[in-house]
Amino acid sequence: MSREERILKRLRDIGEWISKEIAEGRRPYLRLRERSTSNIVYDEESGEYVIADSFAERSAKHMNQIRAFANTVRIAMFVAELIRRGKTATLRETYYQGEAYGVFFKDQQESNERIMDLETLLDVPREDFHIFPEERSFVYGPLEVEVTEGHETKRLRLDVIEDGIAIGPKLTTARFIKESLKEKHNGRYDIERVIAIESGGMFSRLIEERAHERFNAILIHLGGQAPRATRRFIKRLNEELGLPVYIFTDGDPRGMHIAMVIKYGSAHAAHVPGLATPKAIRMGVRATDIQEYKLPSDKLSEIDKKRLKDLRKDPRYQHKFYQDQISTRLKIGRKAEQQSFARYGLAYVINYLERKFRLLEEMREENRLPP
Amino acid sequence: MSREERILKRLRDIGEWISKEIAEGRRPYLRLRERSTSNIVYDEESGEYVIADSFAERSAKHMNQIRAFANTVRIAMFVAELIRRGKTATLRETYYQGEAYGVFFKDQQESNERIMDLETLLDVPREDFHIFPEERSFVYGPLEVEVTEGHETKRLRLDVIEDGIAIGPKLTTARFIKESLKEKHNGRYDIERVIAIESGGMFSRLIEERAHERFNAILIHLGGQAPRATRRFIKRLNEELGLPVYIFTDGDPRGMHIAMVIKYGSAHAAHVPGLATPKAIRMGVRATDIQEYKLPSDKLSEIDKKRLKDLRKDPRYQHKFYQDQISTRLKIGRKAEQQSFARYGLAYVINYLERKFRLLEEMREENRLPP
Repeated sequence: MSREERILKRLRDIGEWISKEIAEGRRPYLRLRERSTSNIVYDEESGEYVIADSFAERSAKHMNQIRAFANTVRIAMFVAELIRRGKTATLRETYYQGEAYGVFFKDQQESNERIMDLETLLDVPREDFHIFPEERSFVYGPLEVEVTEGHETKRLRLDVIEDGIAIGPKLTTARFIKESLKEKHNGRYDIERVIAIESGGMFSRLIEERAHERFNAILIHLGGQAPRATRRFIKRLNEELGLPVYIFTDGDPRGMHIAMVIKYGSAHAAHVPGLATPKAIRMGVRATDIQEYKLPSDKLSEIDKKRLKDLRKDPRYQHKFYQDQISTRLKIGRKAEQQSFARYGLAYVINYLERKFRLLEEMREENRLPP
Repeated sequence: MSREERILKRLRDIGEWISKEIAEGRRPYLRLRERSTSNIVYDEESGEYVIADSFAERSAKHMNQIRAFANTVRIAMFVAELIRRGKTATLRETYYQGEAYGVFFKDQQESNERIMDLETLLDVPREDFHIFPEERSFVYGPLEVEVTEGHETKRLRLDVIEDGIAIGPKLTTARFIKESLKEKHNGRYDIERVIAIESGGMFSRLIEERAHERFNAILIHLGGQAPRATRRFIKRLNEELGLPVYIFTDGDPRGMHIAMVIKYGSAHAAHVPGLATPKAIRMGVRATDIQEYKLPSDKLSEIDKKRLKDLRKDPRYQHKFYQDQISTRLKIGRKAEQQSFARYGLAYVINYLERKFRLLEEMREENRLPP
């Protein structure tokens, strides 16, 4: 049974149970894990922060739950239709389509909450039941994939143009052609790693400096906090192709956290498995890099400092490695963007990355990296 | 002489003149058109709002201008280097690279101002001298283009994947293969038009509903206010390939203005020719559509209303066609997003567009469209 057939079967089972309950004069309910920061635990096995065992109900028994119950069921109907017809919808369209059936969501937030209910119930990310957000980031690299569009299946390489290809529904669910990593590209090497990059400017810079060839890498643009489709794509590259993932973000609290969300998942989406890449490593920009490379930098703002102090208490930052990083950054008290290496010339960032890869390799051998 | 050779020659001429002035004991200056809303005029011939004939100086004679003079010259050196080496840089990198030469821009704004000085001086958009912003939007369609990457020239079709291709430096400067528009695609028709779409959600929707096949169209994602690279790309499709451009944005003041900036240029970039597509037509969402299609809508906010009243005075909105639109919207007092058609089912928006194309055709025949 395919992933989609399993989802459809599960939806049918839920629907049949609800019908039966109603037919027999009982009031049906949905029982799902509670989504709150107090109900998150670290799962040793998968290395992700996952939702714990506290449950909540959406029941037709209670006046204050019946709206949530009915709307979740309504979204489930919509989703079954999407899967059966091979279509996708955005969060926004899902919100609007309710009106066709007399479901008037108060606002986008309410509709999103019900979509999250369905994720929790089915234990899959919404991308698996064809609901996608608007944002897109990009990828560039010599990987070959197979995509299905309508009734057509075709292959393409992700380096057809240096501007990059959008990571949307098609690419997120594409089949990776593993053999294509072993081909010589431009008469060079095999693919060895993924580099995920915060800004569009640095993504273009690294392509222009042939970082993909120098480091035998697939390059991914994150566009700030990475869209979920991109996080899922990164996880698949890591797990299905066995490629190590390196994250290169700005040297500030936000850049630090962008990497952490790729690694351990967001608190907001802890109810969704399949998005985190626990073995991903953040390369920089580290606070110590600012000193070592004399980068153009700014003082940490009061908001930055508060953010760092909050992160220090965050369960995802409890490893000594991160606690030390936070203390060092607070002590140094400065932040720098990844594009600031341009002060030494546009190509200089390649030297930085080269040294970082060597350094991370040493640290790995000496067991100084976090799990 | 290629466009780039012309720019290099112009830079060399300016440089030589400056050297000569200094050698002969005079203080050099740069004379350029003044960039301010009071110095914009409508150019009948090109149909764009362009910069008028008031001039400003950046002179080495005056203490309060010498910084601007020196920094513009510095940026010109950087740009000559970019063109000669076939590289690109972002606005952010241009800001940082100054430090390599002891030029410390106060902030990004100052660096941007000097880049605009250079645009005004050379009379070309910064994209022509290889400086690009970070944002990217996407394109999907059966056009074939030729791109040059390093020493390699290759062809690709812009419909290699339904997720879309980023419109970056490569695509903006790609050569269009005109003949590819006349080929039958999927056994269907020739390409007849460009549809530019505000939101990523609607861009994906139209591809999923095969709008490119139904309307024989190249589809462009704007991502809100379109990046300049995208505006330039649209202009090229319109002028080099003779394709009419239709703009489909949200039914609110912002959506209206997104279309206007594609059509007549932004006040901010009136010093730059080559970005506007004067013949582009906004399809909707019109205020009257909200009533006619009973779209889910919101009241105009106070800010929306103020924005409309400001637009009423804007030189770009002086045609009766736009004045009427603004009055109607203020009277109806509501706004609706383009994705709101989803209330009638995901595919419904196709019917809307079909009717709109017919209506616009009638209006064109009756001469009721603005120039």
